[in-house]
Amino acid sequence: MKIGMIGGIGHNGYVFDGVRARADARIVGVAPGPAEESAAAIARQAERIDQSPKVFDNFRRMLDDEKPDIVSVACHYADHAAVAIEVIERGHHVFIEKPMATTLDDLQALERVFDNANVQLSCMLGLRYAPAFTTAWRVVDHGAIGEVRLMTAQKSYKLGKRPAWTHDRDRYGGTIPWVGSHAIDWLHWFSGARFEHVYATHSARSNRDHGELEASALCHFTMSNDIFGGVNIDYLRPGKAMSHGDDRIRVAGTDGVIEVSEGRAYLIDDQGPRDLELEPKREIFAEFMDQIEGTAMSLISAEDAFLTTKACLLARQSADEGREISF
Amino acid sequence: MKIGMIGGIGHNGYVFDGVRARADARIVGVAPGPAEESAAAIARQAERIDQSPKVFDNFRRMLDDEKPDIVSVACHYADHAAVAIEVIERGHHVFIEKPMATTLDDLQALERVFDNANVQLSCMLGLRYAPAFTTAWRVVDHGAIGEVRLMTAQKSYKLGKRPAWTHDRDRYGGTIPWVGSHAIDWLHWFSGARFEHVYATHSARSNRDHGELEASALCHFTMSNDIFGGVNIDYLRPGKAMSHGDDRIRVAGTDGVIEVSEGRAYLIDDQGPRDLELEPKREIFAEFMDQIEGTAMSLISAEDAFLTTKACLLARQSADEGREISF
Repeated sequence: MKIGMIGGIGHNGYVFDGVRARADARIVGVAPGPAEESAAAIARQAERIDQSPKVFDNFRRMLDDEKPDIVSVACHYADHAAVAIEVIERGHHVFIEKPMATTLDDLQALERVFDNANVQLSCMLGLRYAPAFTTAWRVVDHGAIGEVRLMTAQKSYKLGKRPAWTHDRDRYGGTIPWVGSHAIDWLHWFSGARFEHVYATHSARSNRDHGELEASALCHFTMSNDIFGGVNIDYLRPGKAMSHGDDRIRVAGTDGVIEVSEGRAYLIDDQGPRDLELEPKREIFAEFMDQIEGTAMSLISAEDAFLTTKACLLARQSADEGREISF
Repeated sequence: MKIGMIGGIGHNGYVFDGVRARADARIVGVAPGPAEESAAAIARQAERIDQSPKVFDNFRRMLDDEKPDIVSVACHYADHAAVAIEVIERGHHVFIEKPMATTLDDLQALERVFDNANVQLSCMLGLRYAPAFTTAWRVVDHGAIGEVRLMTAQKSYKLGKRPAWTHDRDRYGGTIPWVGSHAIDWLHWFSGARFEHVYATHSARSNRDHGELEASALCHFTMSNDIFGGVNIDYLRPGKAMSHGDDRIRVAGTDGVIEVSEGRAYLIDDQGPRDLELEPKREIFAEFMDQIEGTAMSLISAEDAFLTTKACLLARQSADEGREISF
């Protein structure tokens, strides 16, 4: 399995972890995204796991020369869609950092190209693979809490000092798509319900000189069957907090309530409250490789990836325009 | 201090606890609310704390005969405003169960009568007096988390089997005003910000044969200075959960995050994460008596009580009408 990597931003660690998990996977080439200067940093990271990719300064040349089976795309967020389109059009499977697109036009263009191609696509919505989330989801999927009625999810990050391009909405895409995408993804993943409406707000106030980057956001999704989903997003997590991110979901159903917080999954049902034993960690990129080989299914289908991205962009539009948006 | 009690619904325990805390307080008369048959149950509860009120079958007669200094009103929720208006017009101070009114017209009528009277009014928003909330609020008020940016609050109750009148919106008033009022109250209490807009949804699905009673709701408040507040409300807490209610708030500010959950107050700031030592429990009704005597200030001003009630009713209207409402 030959892997090419485009871009040094985001969660390339998923790719490295997947490659380490499979003896037959090889990173054959790395190249910078369109707005990046070099792929030297990606190459250095690859060398740390005993890979020796060829380093290119242009991703098209990397694709043409190395003909990778799968290509990861993790560059400036606004470039994801255009790069992924070129990757797909050249016939490579693609593993794209979220958000896969930062405008609805880009998303539609990507979906059109994907629909007409014969490749597979997945997205770095890696928190589906965090054991507490995978465990909680499976328990809900097996009916432990009955019918899902109300969900609240949280993404809270430390702000730190982020690169200048993230201060610019046109390149960054917004905090709802970047930080919020995981939580928005959980809503339809856990409930199996359709998104119907979204109402959202966001604000760049108190963002410690990060330009247009929104430091706080709140989204309210109405889903099929009167299922409601709230998502609160912020960059307000104090530097002294134990971990970078404070990821949570609470799912209240007709027969129980399940929560994920601090890496734990906690259930209350008619047997009382208890912590759940967590499923073993699975590797997102390794499973995508398995899916391509037809031996497993990734937890994140292309359909999921497109739907989550659309939900993020409609939530951002709601927040920008100050009104409810229907799906 | 002579106390009269009208109605046997709701949090009369606040009144009994306050009376026990003050040697000079005496419950002189009890009467049913307009839709209740008798006050015998209230009288029995009063006797348990060594009070021997006279039992009336009509609250007007109780007011005229006993001339109480303060009157508590806790009857069918839709009757609160009309009863409180009569109490105020007769010149008694009044301590009203929330929601103080179940329609905006009733609320305006109550506020008009109160503004023209020379009595004091407070409301049974008793969770301000739960030590974890009082403690967290004071820490925020003292600036420990900097400027408040994003709040999420939760009210989750066990449903059990509720009386038939709560199945009827016209008498019950709705789950957002009844269950949600505490959480909605916290938003302006903790932030000191003005409510500007609200978008809410609610649903009576899966309410286990409770008629129109909504079992789930989600509210999204936009406040002054781009402060956002989410409130999730449900009757989905499993019967086997440790406590009846699962009350929470998380307040994220520019310099820290504070949370109340399971009776604990937890702060993360630049000194790291820690549980806060809780303030001693104070008695809501005893403090209202102190306020009337001029020796203390209740945590719940009349202004707070009117504002919280209005916010609840506008949130319910938003949910009923499926649109954002401006304050």
